[in-house]
Amino acid sequence: MNLILLYTSDFIDARHVRISDRRFHHMRQVHDAQPGDSFKVGVLNGLIGRGDVVARNDDYIDLSIRLDRAPPKPLPLRLIMALPRPKMLKRTLETVATLGVKELWLINSYRVDKSYWSTPILAPARIREHFLLGLEQAGDTRMPEVHIRKRFKPFVEDELADIAKGTRALVAHPYDAEPCPHACSDATTLAIGPEGGFIAYEVEKLQAAGLTPIHLGPRILRVETAVPVLLSRLFPL
Amino acid sequence: MNLILLYTSDFIDARHVRISDRRFHHMRQVHDAQPGDSFKVGVLNGLIGRGDVVARNDDYIDLSIRLDRAPPKPLPLRLIMALPRPKMLKRTLETVATLGVKELWLINSYRVDKSYWSTPILAPARIREHFLLGLEQAGDTRMPEVHIRKRFKPFVEDELADIAKGTRALVAHPYDAEPCPHACSDATTLAIGPEGGFIAYEVEKLQAAGLTPIHLGPRILRVETAVPVLLSRLFPL
Repeated sequence: MNLILLYTSDFIDARHVRISDRRFHHMRQVHDAQPGDSFKVGVLNGLIGRGDVVARNDDYIDLSIRLDRAPPKPLPLRLIMALPRPKMLKRTLETVATLGVKELWLINSYRVDKSYWSTPILAPARIREHFLLGLEQAGDTRMPEVHIRKRFKPFVEDELADIAKGTRALVAHPYDAEPCPHACSDATTLAIGPEGGFIAYEVEKLQAAGLTPIHLGPRILRVETAVPVLLSRLFPL
Repeated sequence: MNLILLYTSDFIDARHVRISDRRFHHMRQVHDAQPGDSFKVGVLNGLIGRGDVVARNDDYIDLSIRLDRAPPKPLPLRLIMALPRPKMLKRTLETVATLGVKELWLINSYRVDKSYWSTPILAPARIREHFLLGLEQAGDTRMPEVHIRKRFKPFVEDELADIAKGTRALVAHPYDAEPCPHACSDATTLAIGPEGGFIAYEVEKLQAAGLTPIHLGPRILRVETAVPVLLSRLFPL
């Protein structure tokens, strides 16, 4: 937790917050927060700054806060991913939030096991929880949006062309593809397949919607490695 | 498993191998390997090619193999990492092997919890097992080397300058650092700290040995995310 995320409900007046949940336990147990100590804080979807501990007891910590900076810039990216298996989904939600993704589409694909769709991690509250962990790690405040599409064909036929329109539109695909382009700040749409990749029919449909296949070289990466590798290559620092 | 790694002990003659362990169970259960099926294979530290199933029973599979290509190029990198916590160590070993790292130094640092050094994952056989998983994922055959240094000071004072000599020598450090340089194929030495980073004294020692601090922008990344992000930025495809 490199930043304490604050919610509207934490505010006891315009410059003070009272914290008594998971964040309180973290500040107490990991940092042994004492009056006078200072923490990096940020308001959800708002500014970041410092919070000085002004009171602490067994139930809560009060912080006096000063917000003076914008959070890190978001990536100009619409990220479309075939739903990963549950264990990897958790890590992926955290990683994409940490890396600055603000728009995530989780879609179906032939190689997505049907059972993955019934994971409790897809509940909005659970997704939000993993995004929060990612934001706290990065020092960011802007909550990503997630869109879930359980049917591949209607998504690519009816929605994808509009999503990708006017953006650098790419699909990570190791075969018959161009090398991943260099870092730039252009608005980008990027689709990443499941373990084993999109099948040929799916790649055709993605191409028909305007996406260009790109590859990352001769090595086959797991999805959780491919995501940071792709984002690191596609965007400047 | 995107490649079946073969060992000298698998060979029954110059062009045939017999497989009866974990790889056999994978080929049987995941792929239902039958005579006539073909798999990507590679000899440990050697060439890659194809293996055609010529026999299968309940105990083993025989493959007729044809080796005709070099494995993917290694990264020209000496990677130095503060020992991660055990769960992350496993994933890190696999990830660095997948990404083409061939020389890994696991070192101590102030923020490395002492208990991490007693994990059974540091046993040579366990490290090798995780490297194998990473190579099988990538489609690579060249086993990385690992060097373990439990004391920070003698390592940076007596060994590091020689390791880094003649290379692009960098330490990932979010403060008072230059932006991460662009992709190039120069021989590189890269040090990555523990969660929370190297402490100021350690950064000074690393600088004294010739390493330049570089940062990855305003976001703080977990080690498992920082590794692919850094390697993706530092080297061409």
